[in-house]
Amino acid sequence: MPPRFYVPTASTTGSVVILPDDEAAHLIHVLRLKSGDPIGVFDGRGHEWSACVTHISKSQARVQLEQAITPIAEPGVAVTLAVAVLKGDKMDDVVRDAVMLGVTRVVALISERIEIAPRLIERGQRLERWRRIAVASAKQCGRSVVPDVERPISVIEAVSAPTAAPRIMLVEPGASATASRTLRDLPRAQEAILFIGPEGGWATGEVEAAAAAGVQFATLGALTLRADAAPIVAITALRALWDDL
Amino acid sequence: MPPRFYVPTASTTGSVVILPDDEAAHLIHVLRLKSGDPIGVFDGRGHEWSACVTHISKSQARVQLEQAITPIAEPGVAVTLAVAVLKGDKMDDVVRDAVMLGVTRVVALISERIEIAPRLIERGQRLERWRRIAVASAKQCGRSVVPDVERPISVIEAVSAPTAAPRIMLVEPGASATASRTLRDLPRAQEAILFIGPEGGWATGEVEAAAAAGVQFATLGALTLRADAAPIVAITALRALWDDL
Repeated sequence: MPPRFYVPTASTTGSVVILPDDEAAHLIHVLRLKSGDPIGVFDGRGHEWSACVTHISKSQARVQLEQAITPIAEPGVAVTLAVAVLKGDKMDDVVRDAVMLGVTRVVALISERIEIAPRLIERGQRLERWRRIAVASAKQCGRSVVPDVERPISVIEAVSAPTAAPRIMLVEPGASATASRTLRDLPRAQEAILFIGPEGGWATGEVEAAAAAGVQFATLGALTLRADAAPIVAITALRALWDDL
Repeated sequence: MPPRFYVPTASTTGSVVILPDDEAAHLIHVLRLKSGDPIGVFDGRGHEWSACVTHISKSQARVQLEQAITPIAEPGVAVTLAVAVLKGDKMDDVVRDAVMLGVTRVVALISERIEIAPRLIERGQRLERWRRIAVASAKQCGRSVVPDVERPISVIEAVSAPTAAPRIMLVEPGASATASRTLRDLPRAQEAILFIGPEGGWATGEVEAAAAAGVQFATLGALTLRADAAPIVAITALRALWDDL
């Protein structure tokens, strides 16, 4: 498969498009492609083309969209991962893997017990970083959809947002009276929002707000997982249990 | 839950046992426990006790096994993870997570395409390190079983070893004519050996040897994963699909 590039402005087969700066730098300076080289282009919203490099300068690359091609199928279950921000670069891996596992959206949660100051998240331009990682991950795994990574919000705000999708909050086994069910016990659906907490678990107020908002609680059976492994395991389990893997 | 310690020599309720050096150091210098403090003890083979510190010196700790307690249930499907050695400390995470996900055994595979010299694995005392990680992971996740981590062997050697367990080799979608099935298509069993390859995929000779030895091939659907995420995803998917999660 030729290298794939993310061009959100791509839309018309036959047209010539200018690559975004990041993508151009990748094409020109990392992969060192030349005029005439075949590439793939996707728009991040589920469309993909075979394309061809038509012009290269020091910092700009233009490519022609030659033929629309069938993108790899998106999952049958649309999963939103709403995950408490993990410290260090662990969140990078979570975003990367969630995209590879087919989520449609990532919501970064500011939980009371996260181990990083919310101010640092903003100052460190984490959101921009996660969005770049989502693009890189989609390029690597062959998806033509780039999931949204949303601006961090509090757990209270997140569980209060109106939605028709079933919402599932993952809790530790035995952590709460509300937590007697496992993922397996939940009714199947075409979409779901999965809430996954930080290293230290959810704060009491967050669990109460979720319960009041009608969020369902579930455990992963008796499993106790590292916080950075929990999202991958939960997404995989949900898709496998809901016949989507 | 009081802190838990791994004491492979533990066997008789009521007896006093000496903690292994590593565990004693953890109890004395990290957790700074005192004589009389309550702890948990497990033998790594599925037995667990409530216990009590009876004697502490500079480097030795003795504890009394007070009462046998029911350990957390082991998975219904006994999964062996046979995984190509990953470079750097990625293999550490794989071992840690595999133990948390309930595997009964880890086999480190020397695949032709691993990105680390087999000699370095031996010289770096990796095996000892992985075994320590398996113990630490069992302590953390509450298992009273410490899975074996076996001496690294070649893929050819591993697929040739006689076993009654179904063997499943994970392959990339479209990578091979043998790879038309997904994990979902395989017959369920009470045990399984999951073969998971390195960053660069299996070598042709390895796939041929596996096919000749009767190993089944399967993909994870259309998913393309990072090599260090593949083991977690595959174990989770197998357990979820086989009604064991």
